[in-house]
Amino acid sequence: MLTLHHLEASRSIRVLWLLETLNTPYEIKHYARDPKTRLGVDAAFSGKGLAAVHPLARSPVLTDGELVISETGAIFQYLLAHYGGVDIAAKTQQAQELSFWLHFSEASFMLHLMPLHYANRAGVLTDDGSSAQEAIIARGLKVDIEYIERTLRANGGSLLGGGIGPADICNIFGLEMFAAMTGARSAAWREKLGLAVGPEIQKWLERCAAEPAYKEAQKKEGDCKEALYVSKLFKQPS
Amino acid sequence: MLTLHHLEASRSIRVLWLLETLNTPYEIKHYARDPKTRLGVDAAFSGKGLAAVHPLARSPVLTDGELVISETGAIFQYLLAHYGGVDIAAKTQQAQELSFWLHFSEASFMLHLMPLHYANRAGVLTDDGSSAQEAIIARGLKVDIEYIERTLRANGGSLLGGGIGPADICNIFGLEMFAAMTGARSAAWREKLGLAVGPEIQKWLERCAAEPAYKEAQKKEGDCKEALYVSKLFKQPS
Repeated sequence: MLTLHHLEASRSIRVLWLLETLNTPYEIKHYARDPKTRLGVDAAFSGKGLAAVHPLARSPVLTDGELVISETGAIFQYLLAHYGGVDIAAKTQQAQELSFWLHFSEASFMLHLMPLHYANRAGVLTDDGSSAQEAIIARGLKVDIEYIERTLRANGGSLLGGGIGPADICNIFGLEMFAAMTGARSAAWREKLGLAVGPEIQKWLERCAAEPAYKEAQKKEGDCKEALYVSKLFKQPS
Repeated sequence: MLTLHHLEASRSIRVLWLLETLNTPYEIKHYARDPKTRLGVDAAFSGKGLAAVHPLARSPVLTDGELVISETGAIFQYLLAHYGGVDIAAKTQQAQELSFWLHFSEASFMLHLMPLHYANRAGVLTDDGSSAQEAIIARGLKVDIEYIERTLRANGGSLLGGGIGPADICNIFGLEMFAAMTGARSAAWREKLGLAVGPEIQKWLERCAAEPAYKEAQKKEGDCKEALYVSKLFKQPS
C-alpha cells in the first residue's frame, strides 16, 4: 500500500494532488505543524513522527510497502514510473521536458525563492525593493518567472501543453508561494524588482485551482478556505 | 554525439566528472564567465551562446543529437539510464536512495545554501553569526550537514556505500561551496550557527579530490590549482 506522509500546508500537497490523478489506492498519514513557529513538530533524527519515517523529518515522504522514497521530485518520478506509466528517462524531448520541470520546481524555482522567504521571515525586506540583497535575490527568480510565462504562452496554458499534468502539479507550490509573497509586497517593490505574477501564470493558477483532483487533494489535506492554498503557511499565528 | 555545454567554474563540473566515469565519447563546449561579475556572459532569452542551447542560459545543458536536456539532476538521470545502465525508478531501496541524492543535491542542499551565498554576496553576514537572518538560514543547512555526516559514517565514506559514485558526484559542488564559504568565516561564526565541515565530510572531500575521473574533469575544465575546485568561483576579481 502506498502511504503519503503529509505535513500540513506544505509542498507535500503536490504529491497528494498527483496521487488523486492516479488510479491507485493510497492512504495519508497526517503530521501537524507547531501553531506558533509553523515548523514541523518532529525534530530531525528524533525518531519520532516524521523522523521515524525518514531521519530528516521533512515532508513529503512516500512509503510503498517497505520502500521509503523521499524528495518530492523523486516521489513524482517513482509514482509516474510505477503508477502512471511514464518513463521519465525516455529519449524523447517530451520526456526530458517533464524531467526538467520535475527538477526545476525545487532545484531552480524554490532554490531562488527560498532566499526571499528567509529574508522576509527575518524582516530584512525593504518597502521598495531597494536593497542590494533584494537585487541579488531577484535575479534568478525574474528569469524563472519569465521562462514560465513564456512557456505557458507557447504551450497553450500548461507547462508541457495538452492540459494540466504532472509538470504543472509539481510546480504549483512554488508558484502559489511566489504569488502569495509578491502579492503581499507593495506595487513599488514588485516593479523595482520585476517580481510579479504575469498574466499567463495568473490564468494557470486559476486553472490549477479549478482542477477537481486539486480540490480533492485540498479537501483531504483538511478544508482550505483560502483563495491560495499556500497562504495558510504565511498566516501569522494568533 | 553527447555534448556538455559547460560554464566555467560552475555546477556543471559534476556532469563533466560523471561523463568521465562513463565509457562513452562526448565533447565539451566551453562557455565563459564575465571576469568582473562572475556571471555567465550570455543573457537568458538572448539567443546567444548558452541561451542558444537553452533559453535560460544556465549551465549545464547536455545535448544528445537533437535532444536537449537541462537541470543537473535530469542530466544525471538521463546519462545513468542510457550510458550507465542504472534504472533510477527501480523498486529497490538502493535505486530510491540514489534518486533521493540526485534531487537532494539541489532541491535541499543548494536550496538551503543559496540564501547564505546571496547574503554573503550582499555583505549582510555578521562576524559572529548573530543576526536573525543567519539563524533562519542555518536551520535547514545544519540538518543537511548532519544528515550527510551521519550517512557517510554509516556507509563507510560514500553516500550510498561501495565507494564514490553518482550520488557523491552529484553532491560535490554544493559541499565544496559549503566548505569554501564556511571556511572563509570566523570560528565564532561557525560555532554560533553550527555550520562547519565535519570529519566525515572532510575525509569525503579529500576522497573525491583524489578520484582520477574528477582530476581529469578538472583538467578538461581548465587547469585548476586551487585546493578546492569551487573556490575559483569565490575569488575576488582582480
